[in-house]
Parts: sequence; C-alpha cells; structure tokens
Amino acid sequence: MTFLLAGASKTEMKNYNGNGLVYVMNPHLDLMDEDILYHLDLGTKTHNLPAMFGDTKFVCVGGSPNRMKAFAQFMHKELGLEGDGKDIKDICAGTDRYCMYKVGPVLSISHGMGVPSISIMLHELIKLLHHAKCRDVTIIRIGTSGGLGIEPGSVVITDTAVDSFFKPQFEQVILDNVVTRSTELDRDLAEELLECSRQIKDFPSLIGHTMCTDDFYEGQGRLDGALCSFSREKKLEYLKRAYNAGVRNIEMESTVFAAMCRLCGLKAAVVCVTLLNRLEGDQITAPHEVLLDYQQRPQQLISLFIRKCLGLWNPNGLSEDVI
Amino acid sequence: MTFLLAGASKTEMKNYNGNGLVYVMNPHLDLMDEDILYHLDLGTKTHNLPAMFGDTKFVCVGGSPNRMKAFAQFMHKELGLEGDGKDIKDICAGTDRYCMYKVGPVLSISHGMGVPSISIMLHELIKLLHHAKCRDVTIIRIGTSGGLGIEPGSVVITDTAVDSFFKPQFEQVILDNVVTRSTELDRDLAEELLECSRQIKDFPSLIGHTMCTDDFYEGQGRLDGALCSFSREKKLEYLKRAYNAGVRNIEMESTVFAAMCRLCGLKAAVVCVTLLNRLEGDQITAPHEVLLDYQQRPQQLISLFIRKCLGLWNPNGLSEDVI
Repeated sequence: MTFLLAGASKTEMKNYNGNGLVYVMNPHLDLMDEDILYHLDLGTKTHNLPAMFGDTKFVCVGGSPNRMKAFAQFMHKELGLEGDGKDIKDICAGTDRYCMYKVGPVLSISHGMGVPSISIMLHELIKLLHHAKCRDVTIIRIGTSGGLGIEPGSVVITDTAVDSFFKPQFEQVILDNVVTRSTELDRDLAEELLECSRQIKDFPSLIGHTMCTDDFYEGQGRLDGALCSFSREKKLEYLKRAYNAGVRNIEMESTVFAAMCRLCGLKAAVVCVTLLNRLEGDQITAPHEVLLDYQQRPQQLISLFIRKCLGLWNPNGLSEDVI
Repeated sequence: MTFLLAGASKTEMKNYNGNGLVYVMNPHLDLMDEDILYHLDLGTKTHNLPAMFGDTKFVCVGGSPNRMKAFAQFMHKELGLEGDGKDIKDICAGTDRYCMYKVGPVLSISHGMGVPSISIMLHELIKLLHHAKCRDVTIIRIGTSGGLGIEPGSVVITDTAVDSFFKPQFEQVILDNVVTRSTELDRDLAEELLECSRQIKDFPSLIGHTMCTDDFYEGQGRLDGALCSFSREKKLEYLKRAYNAGVRNIEMESTVFAAMCRLCGLKAAVVCVTLLNRLEGDQITAPHEVLLDYQQRPQQLISLFIRKCLGLWNPNGLSEDVI
C-alpha cells in the first residue's frame, strides 16, 4: 500500500512543474462511462463541467454554508463584477450536503464539520476540477479554530497540519489497511499569504502548526462536553505540550485537506481565525458581532491575495475593506 | 482512562432501571455558571431549556437538514397536531451548523456527515436533554447507507455498529490517549422496530451489523473516488469479508452514536435504508424519485413506532401512509 505515497511525490513534482492539471490518482476513473458526483449533485453526463468550471483558478472552502455564500458575495464585490451579487446561485442547490458558488475564477464551497465531511467533498471537488480540465488551481481552506497561546482574533496560516499526537500525518483507512500520508502544506503559499496579511491594518497573523482532531470536546481537551474524564491540570498539560510542539490553533479538517490536496497536485493553504485562547477557557463567549468580525478576517486576507494574483490589487489605492 | 467504561456500565444500569434521566458524565459541568451550546445556538442563561424541551421523549437524528425538516413535518401530520406544519420553526436558526425542529414530544435534528460532525451535535444534545431534565428519552438515527448483499431499498436496523475492521468498538481520542468504547445498541428496541416494520406493506427490513467508516470512498472500498489504489478484486474481497462478519450496511456515524448514547443512558437505535448494493457497484444511480421513496422508509417506520409508543396507532385502522 505504500506505492501511493511514493507515487505521490513524483506526481506532485510533475504537477507543480508540469502542465498544472489536477491529478486524479485512480486508474478506474477513465474506464467509467459516467461519473456522478453524488454529494455535489453534478455529473459528467448531466453537466458540461469544462464549460461551467474550466476557468476556475481559486477554490475556497470552509465549514459553514452561510459563510461560504457570504464569501462569494464579498468576492463578487471585491472583483468588481457586475450586479450586487445578492442573487448568487447555489450550484449544488439540488442537494443540502454542501453549497457551492462561482464568482469569476473563484469557487466557494462549504464542507461541513470534521475530516469525513470535508473528505467526501474533496474527492468530488478534485474529480470535478479534473473533469473540467482546470489548470494551476490554488485551494484555500478559510475557517474558524481554537487558538493556543495567541490573542483571540489572530489569523493562523498553517505550515503543517498535525494530528492529536502532534505528528505531521494523516492516517487513511483503505479497505482495512492504514496508510499514512504527509500533511505538509505549500510553504511558499503560506509565506505569500503572511506577506499579504502585513498589508492589512490591525491584522494579527502568524505561521504555525495547526492541530486537527476528530472531536471538538474530549479530543480537544475541553472540560465542557457531555463526557469528560480528565482534570483541568491534565487538559492544560496537554495543550501546553501542543503549544511546545509548535501548534498555534486547533480545528477539525486540516490534516485530510493537506494530505489529499498534496496527493492531487493542488497548491493548498489553511487560513483560520482563532475564536478564543484555549489556554484561557473552553466556551466561545465572545459577543456575536466580535465573532462575526473575526470570521471576516480570513476572507479579507484571501480576497487581497486573489486580487493580487489577478493584478487587481494596488497597494497605493487600498479599498475600504482592506484598510 | 478505563474508569469511563467501567463507570459507564453501572451508570447505564442505573439509568435504564432508575430515574430515566439523561446522564452527563462530566463532573466539571455542575461547576459552570452558564453552558453555551455553541453549535446549537442555545444556552442555559439565554433559553429556558426545561420549558422548551422538558417533554421530549423521542429524538430523531439524520444527516441531511432538509430530510430532518421533512421528517418533522411528516410527524406533525402523523401525530394529528393542529395546522399543516409547513411553517415549522428551526430552533437552531441562529446557526447553520445543524437544524432542529420540535413536534410534540419528538425532536428532529440534523447532524451532517461523519463521526466528528455527529459527535459535536451529540455532546450538545445530551447536555441539552440533561439541562432540560428530560426523562426516558429514546434516540433514533434515521439515515441512508450502502447495502451489502441485500436489495436496494432495504431498511437495516442495527444491532451493533462495527468499525472498518469489523470490531464492535469506537476509538475515542481523549487528549492523546485512545479509549475504546462499546458500540452495542439496545437489542429490545431493535427487535421492537423490526416487529413494527412487519406491519408495513412491502417493507423489506432486517437486523444486522452496520459498518461505520470515516470516509465514503477509499474507506468503503469505492473504485470511483479521486484516489484509489486497489483493484476491483481487492474491493470485493473486503466487502465479502464484511458481509461474512455480519455487516449488512455501511454508513459514517453509527459507532460514535452507539458509544455516546450508551454511555449517557439513552436508549438508542440506528435505522438506515440502503441506496444501492455495494457488491454490485459504487455509484448511486437510482432515479431521484426512487431515492426519495427509499429515504422515506426509515421515517415511516419511526412514525409507526412513535405512534405505537404513544398509544396513537391502531393496527386495524392503518393510516394511508402505512399501508
């Protein structure tokens, strides 16, 4: 089962340096007459995927459907597209599993919470980008997270996603074998994003490790779940060990996101704002408007990055949203 | 870390035979001044939980928000409540993470896809039932699944949820320890549900093991994901081994659902319809209206069960929905 990882490095090299196409590592796929992307309510026979998606250059994913709709509307405005973007259409309206919006070269998709939920979406999204013959796609997860030893509202740009044991790996069960995959993200992209964040006023940001857990309560050392068998001291001892291992925030999707994007030749980044400092508490108690402000920060940063890539950003003519 | 499991059996016995309250296994919870159920947008200070939820006797959970709304509307009709139920209100409207509807003693909640997503909801739901002082609550997951060696459209009532290795257990990471929890479900409730299903015409149903995976593609042996490193033969060999171990369907939430409900003294069942026979294929190709009909089957069964429990079901005066 190790050929996957060995094969991946070669593939990645080819993709980053080669034709820029999204790589699907599945020899069976070419033999299929039709591919139904069930959870996206799209398919190769029912939809003209190259026409619908072929010009996609940026894919932004996040847990909450409302937030991903708001991001699409925000990008509509930021890219100076016609109309007010209010009537933007959910491409996956036929299913309530995920939502998807397209704004120029930007695709905005929700992925729900947790590794399994984002993994289903990523399988179908990667096949979608492959069928649509997209080239040179950058994919960014914009999310919320718990911070470790940093001010709430800080934006963490992930260099490496780590598991609950602080290891930079994702364990994928394939049939009943466990395969270990690397969770390293694109270092240049992370640095570029950090550089962009420096252009935004009052924007606390840093590069660090992101810990990905399969559970919000016991798995993240919270004392406020329905089940809790450890003391406050044990919790803090664990979180401090995580901090010392370089972890600056905790969320629930980054390892599989990093692993799958890496295998398929997608340049990927994870940009999450922290809603609280987990060394100080467990409950998210900040007022609604403060949380709303925090959640807009990754969106602001990604908008600036995309506009910069598209040559639409002028550092001397900052828009209202940026300063 | 093993005291949790040892403690649980005693607790369960007490709850099943005792006061019927939902048990929260967390000594820290009583010390908290306020409990914010963040992902449900509810809290002990902002909402009168006993008044809102105290009379809840049945909790039905399922992945899709639309389906759980439809189930609430269906139950509204089936329980003969006033009005047409069309304007039923989402109690969690302030968040888009989950949706929740209350219809008489029935609570209908969505949980998204995968173990982490349902686990967040269950932590907050169990605390909700605890804060609301609910008694003698039965909780049923109604879902969709892939079948193994049975006709598509069959309804599987789970006796035991098993993991990808066919083991009747759920591995919970707590801080960085792995704790193993039992995933056995209530045998009497499963038998009662099977008996109810016999009352519905043309209703293929059976009791069997349900396999829970963390992935829809590689983890379930699908050949049609973005990544696939195994042959059709290896896939079939794995699925046949699962069948021989007693597995009749595959989904993505049952192990943590069984484990958490068991620990908290909730009588629990899993009732999933199968959308395809995985020994025959991977893609869900049945027409939309057939899938819609399949998805209504668990709802029909649970409606009959609830009405029977409430003394509202007369076997000689079957309603239109049942025959």
